[in-house]
Amino acid sequence: MDGVEGKSGGSVREEASSGKKSGVTRAARSLELVLRVVGMGFSLVAAVMVGVDKETEVVAITVVDTLPPLHVSLTAKWCYMSAFVYFVVANAIACFYAAVSLVALSLMSTKKTTQNGLTLALLILDLVMVALLFSANGAAVAVGLIGLHGNSHANWKKVCNVFKTFCRYTTAGFAMSMMGSFVFLWLVLLGTLSLHKKSR
Amino acid sequence: MDGVEGKSGGSVREEASSGKKSGVTRAARSLELVLRVVGMGFSLVAAVMVGVDKETEVVAITVVDTLPPLHVSLTAKWCYMSAFVYFVVANAIACFYAAVSLVALSLMSTKKTTQNGLTLALLILDLVMVALLFSANGAAVAVGLIGLHGNSHANWKKVCNVFKTFCRYTTAGFAMSMMGSFVFLWLVLLGTLSLHKKSR
Repeated sequence: MDGVEGKSGGSVREEASSGKKSGVTRAARSLELVLRVVGMGFSLVAAVMVGVDKETEVVAITVVDTLPPLHVSLTAKWCYMSAFVYFVVANAIACFYAAVSLVALSLMSTKKTTQNGLTLALLILDLVMVALLFSANGAAVAVGLIGLHGNSHANWKKVCNVFKTFCRYTTAGFAMSMMGSFVFLWLVLLGTLSLHKKSR
Repeated sequence: MDGVEGKSGGSVREEASSGKKSGVTRAARSLELVLRVVGMGFSLVAAVMVGVDKETEVVAITVVDTLPPLHVSLTAKWCYMSAFVYFVVANAIACFYAAVSLVALSLMSTKKTTQNGLTLALLILDLVMVALLFSANGAAVAVGLIGLHGNSHANWKKVCNVFKTFCRYTTAGFAMSMMGSFVFLWLVLLGTLSLHKKSR
């Protein structure tokens, strides 16, 4: 009787443990889906904010002190700076990848081997996105800082005193992209921790 | 007799499989150590190459066409550009971390729980290094490209026509750092694949 009770107790504990595990897996899967949607959103907003940003200003340039200044129309646009082009392209790739990964996860087969393979592939691609987005953010922020403060040693004048709206929008775009890159970093961390738990 | 033969054969196969597994683990551990040494080397060389790089040139500047040009002494140095400061600091951190991780691995306890914990901690820190190095490379290369080609839209003149040696050394430093960042990316990939294998 004792044995039966013991077995029954064990079975109940196993079921409870299995239910708890399944609940934890479901929660982790939901968090992953939410993070992918959020990462996609941040990358999309970042790419669009910098991609559509354009400002034209009329600037007075003094050529000779004795003559009145010349009024020249100048335009600031993302495609005039290679770092911003890289930034927009990198965020567009990350956004596209996040969308594809969401589709792949929703169509994922119930076969364990396929699931494992897809999980590993997504983890590696998430890692590639981390490298891509962090390098794009570094490039864009470095050029943005020169635009904001200039550099007296290289004699590069600041331009954000002229193109205020352009700089404001690109800064917001950079912030969005940074948040997006941290979301992808979080996804890699989640995937790694999940693999670590399974491997114990 | 058959059963004994079967068991004996099974035991031989198990031993062979265990020996093969142990050999694979040893090879993976050796590859990891080599990669950490290589990563440390690349980061160190990158930080030193850009950190000690300095060039002073005398430049002729024409103020008024009717007067002879002024000869001004100009210096190029890593600390004059925030992106280069970030680059040197990031590479120094990566180099220091790689050294610490090598010490930690060599002093690693034989206890499985401690090994697992350290492996996970190093994997997460490798990932942080990937993010740090890729952003630093992005920043340095973006500013380096402006120095090389200039930007007519922002009226930022190229400086690499004057500071040729400085630009050559910083370019070599960027290449070293890029290789270092790919080594850290490789370390994260190796760690992830190893966890994936264990989790199956």
